Amino acid sequence: MLQRKKNAVLVDGVFLNGPIADARAGEKFVEDACKIIMEEVIQKAADVTEKVCEWQPPEKLKKLLDLEMRDTGEPHQQLLQLCQDVIRYSVKTNHPRFFNQLYAGIDYYSLVARFITEALNPSVYTYEVSPVFLLVEEAVLKKMIEFIGWNEGDGIFNPGGSVSNMYAMNLARYKYCPEIKEKGLSGLPRLVLFTSEECHYSMKKAASFLGIGTQNVYFIKTDERGKMIPEELEKQVQRARKEGAAPFLVSATAGTTVLGAFDPLDKIADICEKYGLWLHVDASWGGSALMSRKHRKLLHGIHRADSVAWNPHKMLMAGIQCCALLVKNNSDLLKKCYSANASYLFQQDKFYDVSYDTGDKSIQCSRRPDAFKFWMTWKALGTTGLEERENRALALARYLVDEIKKREGFRLLLEPEYANICFWYIPPSLRNMKEGAEFWEKLHHVAPVIKERMMKKGSMMLGYQPHLGKVNFFRQVVISPQVRREDMDFLLDEIDLLGRDL
Amino acid sequence: MLQRKKNAVLVDGVFLNGPIADARAGEKFVEDACKIIMEEVIQKAADVTEKVCEWQPPEKLKKLLDLEMRDTGEPHQQLLQLCQDVIRYSVKTNHPRFFNQLYAGIDYYSLVARFITEALNPSVYTYEVSPVFLLVEEAVLKKMIEFIGWNEGDGIFNPGGSVSNMYAMNLARYKYCPEIKEKGLSGLPRLVLFTSEECHYSMKKAASFLGIGTQNVYFIKTDERGKMIPEELEKQVQRARKEGAAPFLVSATAGTTVLGAFDPLDKIADICEKYGLWLHVDASWGGSALMSRKHRKLLHGIHRADSVAWNPHKMLMAGIQCCALLVKNNSDLLKKCYSANASYLFQQDKFYDVSYDTGDKSIQCSRRPDAFKFWMTWKALGTTGLEERENRALALARYLVDEIKKREGFRLLLEPEYANICFWYIPPSLRNMKEGAEFWEKLHHVAPVIKERMMKKGSMMLGYQPHLGKVNFFRQVVISPQVRREDMDFLLDEIDLLGRDL
Repeated sequence: MLQRKKNAVLVDGVFLNGPIADARAGEKFVEDACKIIMEEVIQKAADVTEKVCEWQPPEKLKKLLDLEMRDTGEPHQQLLQLCQDVIRYSVKTNHPRFFNQLYAGIDYYSLVARFITEALNPSVYTYEVSPVFLLVEEAVLKKMIEFIGWNEGDGIFNPGGSVSNMYAMNLARYKYCPEIKEKGLSGLPRLVLFTSEECHYSMKKAASFLGIGTQNVYFIKTDERGKMIPEELEKQVQRARKEGAAPFLVSATAGTTVLGAFDPLDKIADICEKYGLWLHVDASWGGSALMSRKHRKLLHGIHRADSVAWNPHKMLMAGIQCCALLVKNNSDLLKKCYSANASYLFQQDKFYDVSYDTGDKSIQCSRRPDAFKFWMTWKALGTTGLEERENRALALARYLVDEIKKREGFRLLLEPEYANICFWYIPPSLRNMKEGAEFWEKLHHVAPVIKERMMKKGSMMLGYQPHLGKVNFFRQVVISPQVRREDMDFLLDEIDLLGRDL
Repeated sequence: MLQRKKNAVLVDGVFLNGPIADARAGEKFVEDACKIIMEEVIQKAADVTEKVCEWQPPEKLKKLLDLEMRDTGEPHQQLLQLCQDVIRYSVKTNHPRFFNQLYAGIDYYSLVARFITEALNPSVYTYEVSPVFLLVEEAVLKKMIEFIGWNEGDGIFNPGGSVSNMYAMNLARYKYCPEIKEKGLSGLPRLVLFTSEECHYSMKKAASFLGIGTQNVYFIKTDERGKMIPEELEKQVQRARKEGAAPFLVSATAGTTVLGAFDPLDKIADICEKYGLWLHVDASWGGSALMSRKHRKLLHGIHRADSVAWNPHKMLMAGIQCCALLVKNNSDLLKKCYSANASYLFQQDKFYDVSYDTGDKSIQCSRRPDAFKFWMTWKALGTTGLEERENRALALARYLVDEIKKREGFRLLLEPEYANICFWYIPPSLRNMKEGAEFWEKLHHVAPVIKERMMKKGSMMLGYQPHLGKVNFFRQVVISPQVRREDMDFLLDEIDLLGRDL
């Protein structure tokens, strides 16, 4: 609306006087919406009598939601109704029975940090615009480096474990041959990297994105528990050398996505040393075990890594996303590799110590203060509180394993070493069948049907997948401190209830 | 704390019974913290009597903040105090006099969307876990594609304009030679891309990250307004061909970072057509002009682009980050280029239409629902409301330009065509000096001192930089609808007040 108050100036057909945003109406909307968020999301988060999801197929949901963006804006009440609808039809990842991904549950402290972040709307690149968040990031990185077991190091928070892995791959490449930054890969020998066949799919994405090529990812065989076999690694390194290629990186996994396996880091580090290869550890999922004195042995040898990816948004519940790439080298390698020295942002004649302007270490320009979320939770729980969560999640996983072993119709895929419990549910009709091709073919179709039924009912959410020749099985993961032992019992009861007629 | 209630089970030294998180205490903390956020951030956002920043140098701020993460957690009141401190010492990017970056101000609607996002904590990759947010993203992309002027298209929200540019570069490369995805760049001719010398620094970062190399970015000369000169582009394309290199991409800029210049898209598109090059338009900053019938001519020819980067978190105030990469090709190019087909996440035997599982188009695995923030603002304001904001910001910029021309001691760097107003403040001591080397050398030191003084006073924040041979000058940008004409007057008065003794 045009404003024609005293002192108004007409420029380019626009009357300029006072703000055009109505702050009072805006604040009222925030207040009313916060009430809805509090009641519909936060207060219901721990309540198992609520549904995990209100399933609607895509075409129907499009009709239920008023998605269209129109020429004129919608009124206050209608916008609040939209908020209600968005919440209603969204999956409640906070729910104690949401087991579908490697994040779940609600952490009230990181949530507050996230609200503060959104309200302040900072971007973390220079100290002048993000003084607090840059110092917080520095403090958190330092602490994470300590838990890895390095004496010093560097790092950067970034949007996802996949991106962290890309950072590491580029860094290893830069260390191998710094000229690539300027000259590119054209005309160079073929770079080759090694990772296990159980690695996260981001390794392939990274290799293609970075111009290395997916064929130059050599996948190393794993043992029956999903761990990289060091002897196989060495063979492949030798093979690459014989081919005239340039091996430069081994990416070990600490906590694989499906099986939750930990590669033998110490033995892999020996091979990396012997052949002069950068050792990256993708501990996006398993890194949180470092917080537990009982379980950190799973990552034995991690201090020998050159870089580590670790996502506190998974088991440590910092909220999506909270991911650090940590680097042992403290001689500014990260900055040398990534800097572009933009003079409009990273002026060198500022009145403060510009070494705090860490944004040039990043592939991003704007960057969110993700470290802050983790920091707030750490402040609230203390190291012992985080350790307790970790221990309890793994104890609950152990409890579930024991229950699966006791119950008819449930079969473990393998004895887990972490929080991933992979198992089949074998319905009564298949229990006496010979385990030939027909059995596996039939079993393959069981999990998808049970999944469909649980989602339509909204009682829980649990992932399934086929994996390396194994037919569809369930993968259960325990993360949230809202989860009770009874929820583990419920999980098995519910699968049996939903699948016993199959 | 160990729990020894009825039915407790001891596993691995942990008593399992009930949740360990105290939901009531958590909810209370969220409530109390929200009150602080409301009072200290949101209600003060439009108040010019508040300070923009409470400057403290790094070492002192470290002492003022209790950064250390300890073994035991902190109590409720202390955590609330931490929240207060974080807010107090953070820069108020919402403030009507924060002009330091290409984002500013507060948008109450996107803020609510962000609160909802944080409370629901979704990850956008599969329809089963993010039904609402995937549909919203689809709707927003469709609308943005419409505003670009394409009949159809594809796209993906991602963490930043820099990352969007990387996406485009990789996509252009894939189109040029799909085998690179698997085989990499080794053994291929040198790929070369073209962009103006005024482009964003992310082009260099992208070229080095993608293994293309910064030397293979050919920077094209710009005219006196900062626009790419098409004739120079054609010469460079021919040069690259003569060198035996493989030209594959032109990245034009619509709204350069410092000068706010728009490259002549239509003429550049002619050259791209002639030589078979992918045309990417980095409209991260200038894309919002598409919302204005009055100003969209700045991007004349954008419909001929193959891809566009556009950040609604800048002028359209969706909150950091909200960035789309849009692609004209609708034959699944994005998916073909980026997919890794992870079977644990993108199962093909789901019970719904898996074409809604768009996550495999992304370089990320977890991904935030950034489209939702923009959607909420669009719903609240309507297209006309967004257009009004855009028009008003540019009218305010025009007003400031006129004021700068009127006032003694202020000098425009160039006549702006967008919201970037670049100018020098010439203090009285320099006003009668001959404009030789000494004059420019002295003028170079003026802006940093004024910047230091304004930050220590906390009265406003404004960026400065040297740029392509020009000594330090101020860059003012108007974005927020909370900004009034009086704030433009204040800006010039304040610079004069802070700098007249220099």
